[in-house]
Amino acid sequence: MRIDLNADLGEAFGRWELGDDDALLDVVSSANVACGFHAGDPTVLRRTCNLAARRGVAIGAHTGYRDLAGFGRRFVDVPPTELANDVLYQLGALRQFADVAGTRVSYIKPHGALYNAIVHDERQAEAVVDAVLDFDSNLTALGLPGSAWLRLAAEAGLPVMHEVFADRAYTPEGRLVSRREPGAVLHDPVEVAERCVRMATEGEIVAIDGTVIPVRADSICVHGDTQGAVELARAVRTGLNEAGVTVAAFAMAPV
Amino acid sequence: MRIDLNADLGEAFGRWELGDDDALLDVVSSANVACGFHAGDPTVLRRTCNLAARRGVAIGAHTGYRDLAGFGRRFVDVPPTELANDVLYQLGALRQFADVAGTRVSYIKPHGALYNAIVHDERQAEAVVDAVLDFDSNLTALGLPGSAWLRLAAEAGLPVMHEVFADRAYTPEGRLVSRREPGAVLHDPVEVAERCVRMATEGEIVAIDGTVIPVRADSICVHGDTQGAVELARAVRTGLNEAGVTVAAFAMAPV
Amino acid sequence: MRIDLNADLGEAFGRWELGDDDALLDVVSSANVACGFHAGDPTVLRRTCNLAARRGVAIGAHTGYRDLAGFGRRFVDVPPTELANDVLYQLGALRQFADVAGTRVSYIKPHGALYNAIVHDERQAEAVVDAVLDFDSNLTALGLPGSAWLRLAAEAGLPVMHEVFADRAYTPEGRLVSRREPGAVLHDPVEVAERCVRMATEGEIVAIDGTVIPVRADSICVHGDTQGAVELARAVRTGLNEAGVTVAAFAMAPV
Amino acid sequence: MRIDLNADLGEAFGRWELGDDDALLDVVSSANVACGFHAGDPTVLRRTCNLAARRGVAIGAHTGYRDLAGFGRRFVDVPPTELANDVLYQLGALRQFADVAGTRVSYIKPHGALYNAIVHDERQAEAVVDAVLDFDSNLTALGLPGSAWLRLAAEAGLPVMHEVFADRAYTPEGRLVSRREPGAVLHDPVEVAERCVRMATEGEIVAIDGTVIPVRADSICVHGDTQGAVELARAVRTGLNEAGVTVAAFAMAPV
Repeated sequence: MRIDLNADLGEAFGRWELGDDDALLDVVSSANVACGFHAGDPTVLRRTCNLAARRGVAIGAHTGYRDLAGFGRRFVDVPPTELANDVLYQLGALRQFADVAGTRVSYIKPHGALYNAIVHDERQAEAVVDAVLDFDSNLTALGLPGSAWLRLAAEAGLPVMHEVFADRAYTPEGRLVSRREPGAVLHDPVEVAERCVRMATEGEIVAIDGTVIPVRADSICVHGDTQGAVELARAVRTGLNEAGVTVAAFAMAPV
Repeated sequence: MRIDLNADLGEAFGRWELGDDDALLDVVSSANVACGFHAGDPTVLRRTCNLAARRGVAIGAHTGYRDLAGFGRRFVDVPPTELANDVLYQLGALRQFADVAGTRVSYIKPHGALYNAIVHDERQAEAVVDAVLDFDSNLTALGLPGSAWLRLAAEAGLPVMHEVFADRAYTPEGRLVSRREPGAVLHDPVEVAERCVRMATEGEIVAIDGTVIPVRADSICVHGDTQGAVELARAVRTGLNEAGVTVAAFAMAPV
Repeated sequence: MRIDLNADLGEAFGRWELGDDDALLDVVSSANVACGFHAGDPTVLRRTCNLAARRGVAIGAHTGYRDLAGFGRRFVDVPPTELANDVLYQLGALRQFADVAGTRVSYIKPHGALYNAIVHDERQAEAVVDAVLDFDSNLTALGLPGSAWLRLAAEAGLPVMHEVFADRAYTPEGRLVSRREPGAVLHDPVEVAERCVRMATEGEIVAIDGTVIPVRADSICVHGDTQGAVELARAVRTGLNEAGVTVAAFAMAPV
Repeated sequence: MRIDLNADLGEAFGRWELGDDDALLDVVSSANVACGFHAGDPTVLRRTCNLAARRGVAIGAHTGYRDLAGFGRRFVDVPPTELANDVLYQLGALRQFADVAGTRVSYIKPHGALYNAIVHDERQAEAVVDAVLDFDSNLTALGLPGSAWLRLAAEAGLPVMHEVFADRAYTPEGRLVSRREPGAVLHDPVEVAERCVRMATEGEIVAIDGTVIPVRADSICVHGDTQGAVELARAVRTGLNEAGVTVAAFAMAPV
C-alpha cells in the first residue's frame, strides 16, 4: 500500500518567510510549489525546487491568482482566457527552475481561492485545464474529489489524482465541513494520524456525524504554515509508516 | 535627561508577518511605520497606527522605494520628481491612518536603501525634502548625522533629529562600520545597553579602535526583525531607565 | 438648471498613457481621479490633481480594487475590513495631492468592478461607506441610482448624488442594458447629446423599448478612454449649454 | 548581404497598450518580447509570440528589472543571485509561450536600465550570463558592442550578436551620443535609412563630428513606441531592401 503526502511550500516572498520548508520536505512526498503570483519570488522558486529535488520530493505547480496582497486567497473574477495565460506563465516559470534542479513539474494543484473556485466554476476550471494542455498533456491534475476541475481534467485526458485533508472534518456526503462550523479542523495528532491511516488502508473516513463514508485518497494534504503543522505532518507520516503504508509521490516517473 | 528609542514597525504584508510589533511597542517611544511601498498593506498600517496610538508611541513615516520584492533594500534610481511624489503619496496614506487612530505623523525616517542613498545622493535627498515640505513643513526629519538628507532638511527649515544605532560599531570618524567587517554588529545586550546609556548621558561612544568620540544622539534605533531583537531593545530601555534617562519621543507635541 | 459632467481621469501608469485627460478636463466639471490601485501612480495623481485644480474641475476619488493587471475591472472578493482599509489608503493618498494642488477631494465614485459589486454586494458597499466615514463624513457619494452603495451611504448620513450614463441604453425599469445586448452603447453624438439634455431638463429618458421613464440625474458620466470619447463628451457639453443647462460640479463648495 | 532588424514588442500591460506591434511585426525580423517584469502580462506574451511566429519573426527575451511603475528604465541594485533568478524566471515564462506558438526563444536582449547597467556593471552582467547558461547555452546574446555583457557572454561560450541603433548619433569612439546632447537622436527617415544601409553594406558610420568609423552591425535596433517610429522602421527596411540587403533574423535556425 502506498499514498502520497503533499504540502504547500515555497510560500516565502522577498524578505518574508513562511512555514518551515526544510522540516516539511523531510515529511512529504510532493511539494506544491508557489509560482510567484500569490507567493514565491524567483529566488524562492529556485531554492524550493533545489531542496525538493535533493530529497526526491515531487514538484507540483501551486498556481494562484495574481494577488500577492491577498496571498491568492481572494476570489478574482479573471476572464478565462486571461486565467489560462496566467496559469501557463506560472507553469513555464516553474518548469524552468525544476529543470535547473534536475527534475520536472509532475503535477498541478491550484492554490487557495483558485482551488476553491474551480470546484464549481466551470469556466475557470476549463481555463486551468486549457493551460495544462498547452503545457504538458501528461501533467497530473491534483484536486478535490467531485470538483469541476478534476472532472474536466479527466475529460480532457489528463491523469487525475484525488486528495483528502489530514486535519479536516467531512460531512456525511463526503464534503469538507466549513471552517466556520465547530469541529471543522482537527488538532490532535494521534486522531489525525489514525484517520489518515484509515483513509489510506481502508479507503474510508468517519464523517462528523459518525457515519463511515468511502473516500478516494491518492494524496493526503498536510498544511505547513500553521502552528503545529509540522508536528501534525510528522505524526501522519509516522502513523502511515507504522501501518505499513509507503509514503511516495504518485508522480515520480523518471525525468 | 531624555532620549528617544525608535524601531521599524508595521512591516508585515498580507499573509506575511515580520517582527514582533506588539512587544516592540512596549519598548520604543517612536514607531517607524512602513507605508505600503516596501512593506505594510493598508490593514497593517491601520493596525500599527492604532497600536502605537494606544500606547502613546509617536508615529513616523518609514517611506521606502516601491519595491516589495526587495523590501526596499535595493537602491532604485528613481528620478527625483517621481521619488518626491512616491514619498508624498506614502505620507498622505499614513497620515490618514494616523488620523483615524487619533494621532498624527510626527516625523519621517526613510527606509532601507533610500535611507542609505540620501546619505550621499543629493538629488534623492532633495526630493525627499521636497515631499516633506509639501506634506507639512513642521515634520521632523530623522536620520544619520552628517547625511545630505539632514543637511538639506535643516537648510529647508525642517526640524532635524539625529539617530544612533544601538547595536552597531562606529569608526573613529563617527561612521558606521560596514556590516561586512568583523565586529560591525554587537549582540551582547549588556554591552549594547551600556553604550546606549553612555551615548544618552555623555554624548560619546567608544569607536571600534577604542577611541572615544562624540555623538549627537536624539534617538536610538533598535531593530525588530532579527533574532533576539526584542530582548536587545528591552535591555536598552531598562539600562536607560536605570541610568535615570527618560525614554520619550522627541515629537509628541499635542495633536 | 445645472448638471454635473464626470469622467474617469488620471488612468495612466508609469510609461503607459490612457485617454486624453487634457481634452476631457476642458469638458467635464468633475474628475474621477484614479488613486493608484487600479491605475494612476503618484506622479500621475499629482499631475491630474494640478490640472483639475487649475481648471476648477472638482476632484473625486476613483477608488478601485488593488489590481493593476486587471485595471480594477475584475471582481475581487476582498474581505470588507481589508476593502475599507484599501479604500481609506487611496483616499488619504489622493487627499494629499488635492491638498498640494490647492483643492480638496469633493466626492468618491468607486471604479470598475468595485462600482459594479457595490450595486448589490451589501458587505463591500458597507466597507466603502465605512472608509468614507473615517475619511470625511461630508464627502459626497456618487453612484448608480438604486445601488446598495447609495442607499447605505445615505443611511450613514453621507450626501449622495445619482449619475446617469451619456452613452448607454436603459431598460424600461431604469437599469442599464447589458453591454452584451445589441444597442446597449450609443455612438451618435447628436442622439447622445439630446438624451442628456432631456435627462437634465426633463428628468426623463427614452428606454430601449421606447418607454419614457423618469431618471434622477445629478451627474452625467462620459467616458474618456474609448475611440471618439472626447468628441462625444464635447457634444454633450455643447448640447447642454445650448439648452441653457449650466455644467457645474455639484461639489464645489469652497475649500 | 543580410542584416537583422530588431524592435521592442509586447510592451502592453493589462488595459494599457503601447506601440503598434502589428505594424512593426511587418517590418522587423526579430522581436524583443517583454517578459512580464517591466511590461507584458501573460496574455500579451501569448499574443505577441503568436503574432511573431505567424510572420516568421524571431523571438528574443526582453528581460528587465521587476519594475512595472518604472517600465524597467530605472537602475535597480539587485543582488546578482536574485537578478539571475529574475532573468531565468522571465526566460522560462517566455519559452512557454514561444513553445505554444510553435517557435522558440532565439536570443536575449536585456531591456532598459538593465541593458544600460550591464554595459559596465560586471556583476549584473555576469548574473544575466549565468541565467542564460541555466536556460540554454546556445541562446544568442544580443547587445551593445564593447559591453561587459557581450564580453562575458562570449567568454562563457554563448553566441553573441552586436547591435547598432538606427536613429542614434555616434561619437568618434563608436559610442552613442548621450540623449542630452543636441543631435543625439535622428528623425529624418531618409538620413536614417541611408545610415543603416551604409552600416549594413560598408560596416561603417559617420560619427557626429564627421569622422567615418567602423561598426559591427549584426542587428539594427528600431524603436516602436515613439511618434513616427513605425514610419522610420519602414524607411529603414525599404532602404535596406533597395540596397540589396536581405533583412533576416540571425537566429532562425529550425526549431
